[in-house]
Amino acid sequence: MKTTATLPRPSVSTLYLSAPEAAELIRQKGLQNCIAGIADNIKADFLRWNDFDKSARVANHSHDGVIELMPISDDVSYSFKYVNGHPRNHRFGLPTVMAFGVLADVATGCPTFLSELTLTTAMRTAAMSAVAARALARPNSRVMALIGNGAQSDFQALAFQHLVGIEEVRLFDLDTAATKKLADNLVGSGLRVVICASTADAVRGADIVTTVTADKTNATIITPEMIEPGMHINGVGGDCPGKTELHADVLRASAVFVEYAPQTRVEGDIQQMPADFAVTELWEVLAGQKPGRADAQQVTVFDSVGFALEDFSALRFMGDAAAELGLGEQVALIPEMDNPKNLFGVLRQSAGRVSRPDLRLAA
Amino acid sequence: MKTTATLPRPSVSTLYLSAPEAAELIRQKGLQNCIAGIADNIKADFLRWNDFDKSARVANHSHDGVIELMPISDDVSYSFKYVNGHPRNHRFGLPTVMAFGVLADVATGCPTFLSELTLTTAMRTAAMSAVAARALARPNSRVMALIGNGAQSDFQALAFQHLVGIEEVRLFDLDTAATKKLADNLVGSGLRVVICASTADAVRGADIVTTVTADKTNATIITPEMIEPGMHINGVGGDCPGKTELHADVLRASAVFVEYAPQTRVEGDIQQMPADFAVTELWEVLAGQKPGRADAQQVTVFDSVGFALEDFSALRFMGDAAAELGLGEQVALIPEMDNPKNLFGVLRQSAGRVSRPDLRLAA
Repeated sequence: MKTTATLPRPSVSTLYLSAPEAAELIRQKGLQNCIAGIADNIKADFLRWNDFDKSARVANHSHDGVIELMPISDDVSYSFKYVNGHPRNHRFGLPTVMAFGVLADVATGCPTFLSELTLTTAMRTAAMSAVAARALARPNSRVMALIGNGAQSDFQALAFQHLVGIEEVRLFDLDTAATKKLADNLVGSGLRVVICASTADAVRGADIVTTVTADKTNATIITPEMIEPGMHINGVGGDCPGKTELHADVLRASAVFVEYAPQTRVEGDIQQMPADFAVTELWEVLAGQKPGRADAQQVTVFDSVGFALEDFSALRFMGDAAAELGLGEQVALIPEMDNPKNLFGVLRQSAGRVSRPDLRLAA
Repeated sequence: MKTTATLPRPSVSTLYLSAPEAAELIRQKGLQNCIAGIADNIKADFLRWNDFDKSARVANHSHDGVIELMPISDDVSYSFKYVNGHPRNHRFGLPTVMAFGVLADVATGCPTFLSELTLTTAMRTAAMSAVAARALARPNSRVMALIGNGAQSDFQALAFQHLVGIEEVRLFDLDTAATKKLADNLVGSGLRVVICASTADAVRGADIVTTVTADKTNATIITPEMIEPGMHINGVGGDCPGKTELHADVLRASAVFVEYAPQTRVEGDIQQMPADFAVTELWEVLAGQKPGRADAQQVTVFDSVGFALEDFSALRFMGDAAAELGLGEQVALIPEMDNPKNLFGVLRQSAGRVSRPDLRLAA
């Protein structure tokens, strides 16, 4: 029984970064630097692809959406992300995608970092898209169509500006208020912003076409007649069973690249295709093991669904940055024990409040 | 841009219950009442087994242990638990099992409750064992052998005392300090405590045998010659590939009951047996769809590995109790947005600190 009110120094504590603290972190470091730092981590981690214990994410589907868990680990660190996808959440004034996640120590299982991942997912998805486009798009790409102008679109625009060299974005969304929001947010960014009247209008003449729509339907946002030689299609919103954006003939006419084939065949735009439809995992291109784009005329597709490794890379970036900037707070997610075999003894500790000798087993 | 320092009322906030606050909750309600309340929730949830979207947990194995995610949902609520198992953690002064988890709203994906689950897992595992024993052990069971006297054992002893009617516990552990810890914690509980010199000594004459050892090995703690007619074996510690406690002949000579067969065949003591080894899922017994114990002579085994539904039940109990007692605190795991399509706008909000109009995109 403890007789002193002072608690022992915690040996198991977790750094917690809330959403407001993550926003503060991004403000202090600069959004562009955060996306670039996450992109660097993603590329470094993809180059050691075989170090990771990988699996497709685990999804619980419901009428209105999906909740997913995305674990991954190497020999040192483990991470997972919780993320939902509820396309109709706007009717409640809620985001369609919300996320949080944890980094843990593989040697002990201790969770070391608990972070918001809603903002972070937007950055990492944009960073991943940019890493793929740097490997797959024509090097002189300057114009990007951006179809779907919701929560992720601002981050895509800025990532492609700063990491790929895009100078003009051509916007289209069925929701004109979303397009206005995006255009407003891009004022002062240095990007030339063109608001378009249709997907076809936005896509016409673009070097890169980014689709980041939210409907959980087998949509065909991009159809074959829109495609021009040499385009790179960054397909982000076809990321769930029953949720696609690209016409099957667009996929047939393109070289298709994916993050992790076992997951993408279930969730990506290629869910429409036969199980033996040829795809290349992006890490193979980054590592120089497989060719990327064949020539300036080929149409390339990055069928991005979001893979756990990207969150691992992003969590490490945010954890490192939080430590560097002194942001976040230590929380007691795990009980502190003088004797780890005496979990019961925790109930007799004072919890930093009044000491309670009456355990009230028989309350 | 916000011009006021006052934040809008959060529409997405998560109740966070730390380990010290959970300990306080247990002190205020009484441990026995918490275990009983969790047992009631478990039984009620097992009786509506087919309402749940179930899957075997996802495990990342490493040299020293395992980290697992355990998701489950019905039409209204989703939960998952993060839990590790690192049998050699004691060398760092750390617990072998640490856990936390989340309840979320299926309709929106919002995480509503984030809680420590290290203490809670100990209670829910004991509650599950007691629910199974009430269905499977002889009704007049009064003596329990308790093999493995680590962190979970105190909770098992008290659950069986209060929910099953056990009056005497017979303790054995290779680590005599662990046995002393358990015996000390049970002083004043009303249980008759007998410290034994061996597993065989502890098991002799017991009505119920609970094994809750931690070694990640294919151990044979319980061998056929120890078994007496009518015993109920509550096998808790064989819960991971390569981690078993019961000799295969003990399983062959018994009626074996499990939580969720697809998971137990991989993780439980029955991992030693052929894929068609006959088992009964406990919910079928609770629901009256399958017989439990055939007669007073039969040996029954509950091959418990811990299933996500038990954590769902326990999280609901802890969330309800925290709300009732006003424990825990609201945290901003998810960013608050005036316009859910304007995630980028969060970066321009004040975060309750100084307003920063300089977003520093080009920092």
